[in-house]
Amino acid sequence: MANHVVIMAGGVGSRFWPLSTPQFPKQFIDILGCGRTLIQLTVDRFSGICPPENFWVVTNRSYVSIVREQIPGIPSEHILAEPAARNTAPCIAWACWSIRQEDPDANVVVTPADAVVMNTPEFQRVIKGALEFTAGHNNIVTIGIKPNRPETGYGYVKMEPKGTVLFGPISKKEPNRTVPFGPFRVEAFKEKPSREVAQQYLEDGNYLWNAGIFVWNVQTITDSLSKYKPQLASEIEKMVATAAIDEIFPQCEKISIDYAVMEPAAADGKVYTCPADFGWSDLGNWQSLHEKLSKDQDNNAAVGNVYFYDSTNCVVHAENARKVVVQGLDGYIVSEKNGQILICKRSEEQRIKDFSAEKEPKGTVLFGPKTENGAK
Amino acid sequence: MANHVVIMAGGVGSRFWPLSTPQFPKQFIDILGCGRTLIQLTVDRFSGICPPENFWVVTNRSYVSIVREQIPGIPSEHILAEPAARNTAPCIAWACWSIRQEDPDANVVVTPADAVVMNTPEFQRVIKGALEFTAGHNNIVTIGIKPNRPETGYGYVKMEPKGTVLFGPISKKEPNRTVPFGPFRVEAFKEKPSREVAQQYLEDGNYLWNAGIFVWNVQTITDSLSKYKPQLASEIEKMVATAAIDEIFPQCEKISIDYAVMEPAAADGKVYTCPADFGWSDLGNWQSLHEKLSKDQDNNAAVGNVYFYDSTNCVVHAENARKVVVQGLDGYIVSEKNGQILICKRSEEQRIKDFSAEKEPKGTVLFGPKTENGAK
Repeated sequence: MANHVVIMAGGVGSRFWPLSTPQFPKQFIDILGCGRTLIQLTVDRFSGICPPENFWVVTNRSYVSIVREQIPGIPSEHILAEPAARNTAPCIAWACWSIRQEDPDANVVVTPADAVVMNTPEFQRVIKGALEFTAGHNNIVTIGIKPNRPETGYGYVKMEPKGTVLFGPISKKEPNRTVPFGPFRVEAFKEKPSREVAQQYLEDGNYLWNAGIFVWNVQTITDSLSKYKPQLASEIEKMVATAAIDEIFPQCEKISIDYAVMEPAAADGKVYTCPADFGWSDLGNWQSLHEKLSKDQDNNAAVGNVYFYDSTNCVVHAENARKVVVQGLDGYIVSEKNGQILICKRSEEQRIKDFSAEKEPKGTVLFGPKTENGAK
Repeated sequence: MANHVVIMAGGVGSRFWPLSTPQFPKQFIDILGCGRTLIQLTVDRFSGICPPENFWVVTNRSYVSIVREQIPGIPSEHILAEPAARNTAPCIAWACWSIRQEDPDANVVVTPADAVVMNTPEFQRVIKGALEFTAGHNNIVTIGIKPNRPETGYGYVKMEPKGTVLFGPISKKEPNRTVPFGPFRVEAFKEKPSREVAQQYLEDGNYLWNAGIFVWNVQTITDSLSKYKPQLASEIEKMVATAAIDEIFPQCEKISIDYAVMEPAAADGKVYTCPADFGWSDLGNWQSLHEKLSKDQDNNAAVGNVYFYDSTNCVVHAENARKVVVQGLDGYIVSEKNGQILICKRSEEQRIKDFSAEKEPKGTVLFGPKTENGAK
C-alpha cells in the first residue's frame, strides 16, 4: 500500500513581517537559518516514508512557482493551486480525491507546511506507526502532541483513558520514549481553552495538542467526507473528474476539516490519536522561534551575521543583511528582509501585523533636514 | 580678482558606520537626506561666489571617481589626488601653488567638505566680506563661528577686543545680524579647551570656534608657507612644477595648517577673523546630526522611510531601506546602508568605530537552529 503525503501550504499571515509577507509567506522561508525553508524541512521529514512522486501540495495559485522552485522533485500535477482559500476541508478533499484517482489504495498523511519538528527519528517512528494502523483499519488518526505547557493557542484532542496513561518511559527497550504507544481512541476535540482549562488538561494527562497532522487511507477520508459533508464531497468529486476548478472550488463551503469530519467522526468513535513527543512547534510567533533557535549566554537568538553587545533576550532574523550590530537591547525583535527593517519589543509582537500594514502609519515619516540647502 | 574655492575632502572615519565607511566617507553621503551630499552642499554654498571651473578638491586618490561623479562641473586637473594623507598644510600648499600657477592674482577660500551651514545667505555675506578684505590686504582670514555652547571638541580663535564686542543686532539696517562686522585681528589660536575653559571662552565673548574655513589671496598663503615652512614650501613648489606627486608628496612633513602657518602668522599679527553665525556644524557625530535634522513631537529625527511607534529621542538614517519600523526605543541610533545595520544607544556612539571593525566581534555570531533538520 503506497504512502502519499499532502502538504497544506496555503497560509498567508504577516506575524513575521518583514521576514514573511503575503507575497512570500512563512512556509517558504528559511526561518530557522538552516539552509532549508519550512516546506522543504517538511518534505525532508518524510524521507524514507514517501517517495518524491507521491507528495502533494495544496497552496494558493500565487505560490505555485515558489513551490515548484523549492520542491523540484514533485510532479507538477500534484501541485493543487487554489483559486481561493476555502479552509482545510475543501483543500484536503481536493487532495484526497485526486490521490484516489491515481491510487485507490493509497495511505495518506496530511501535514501543514509551516510546523517544525526537532526530533525527526521520533517523528518518523510515530508516523510509520500511524500508517501501519490506517493501512489495516478504516479509521482516522490525528497526531496528538504531548503538551509541555498550558498552551491556550492550540486546540486539544482528548484520548479515551486506557487505565492510567503514563507520559514517561514505557519499556526498557525504548528508554527514550516519553509517550505511550497508540493509537488511542479520541473521545473528543476541544477548542482553544482558557488558561485554567489548559492547566487542567496538562495535569489530566489525556489531553494532547491537535497538530493538524492527519493519517488515513484514501478510502476512509473520502467515505467520511461523503458521509459527513455529502454536498462538499460531491462537488469536489465532480471537480476532480471534470477539472473545473475555477467554477467549483470557490463555491465550496468554507469549513475546517475539524468541523467537517473530525468532530462527527470522533462522535462515531472512528478517530484515533498517536501520542507524540518529537519537539513539534507550529512556529506561530517570534516567541516560539526564539525557543527553537539556539541561544547565546545572554539568551539572544539570531539568524544571520549578527553581533550582540550589551544585549539580552533578543531574537534577530536578518535574511539579507551582510552585518547587523545590536547594542543595548533587552527583549527585542529585530527582523530584516529585502530592505525592510523591524525593531520591536518582544512583548509587542502582536502589533507587528499593524506595523506591516501599507496604510498611513501611526508612526512618523520624516524626510531630511530643516536647512535651506536641504529644502526639497 | 578671481575667486577660487579649495575643498578639503580627504576625510575617512567610521563614526557614522554603516552610513559612512573608509570606502565611502561622510563627505560623499547625503547625510541630511536632502538629495545632495555634503560635498555637493559645500559646492552649492559658493554659488555666485566662485564659478564651477574655479573649484579645487583635494582628496585621497581612492575618492577621485566619487568626486568626478558628484561634482561633474569641476575640471579634472582641479582634483588633486593625494597618494597619502599628510594633514592639512601639504594639502593646502599643493592646492594654492596649483592655483597660483593658473592665476597668480587668485583670491582663495579653503573649506572642509563635510561641514553643514544652515543659513547660506549669511554664509555668503561673511565670505564675500572676507574676500573683499583679502583682495586688498596680504593678511589671512579664518572664519570664526559664534559659539552657542561651551564646546570642548573644537579649537578656538581669540579676537583682539575692539572695545566691547557685542553679539547681537549691530545696526538697524541689518536687524538679523547677531555678530559684529569684522574682520578683527586674531590674538591667538587655542587648542580644544577643558569644559571650564570653554565656559570662560563662551562668557568672554571674544572667542570663536575655529571652523577650518580660511580666506586669503594666493600670494599671501604661498608667501606665508615659504616664510614659516620653507622646506615644505619648496618641496610643494617643485612638486607642482614637475608633477612628481608620488615622489614628493608622501615625503612632505605631516602637519596641520594651524601649526604650520596660522599660529606663527597670528603671532606676527597677520591673521584676522570674521565673526560668523550661519548655523555651522562639522557634523562630527550622531549628536550633531540629530540636532540638525527636523524632529517629530517625540524628538525623533529620521532620514528615510521611517515609522516610529512608542519611541523618543531617536535618530534614524536608513539610506537604502524601503521601510523601517522602530517601536519602543528611547535614545537610540538606527543606521542602515548597503545591507549593514546598526542599532546602538546614543550614549554609546563613541563605540561605533569598534562595532564597525572587521576583526572578530566582541559580540556573538549565531547561525541557525539546534534542530536535527537544521544541522548544517
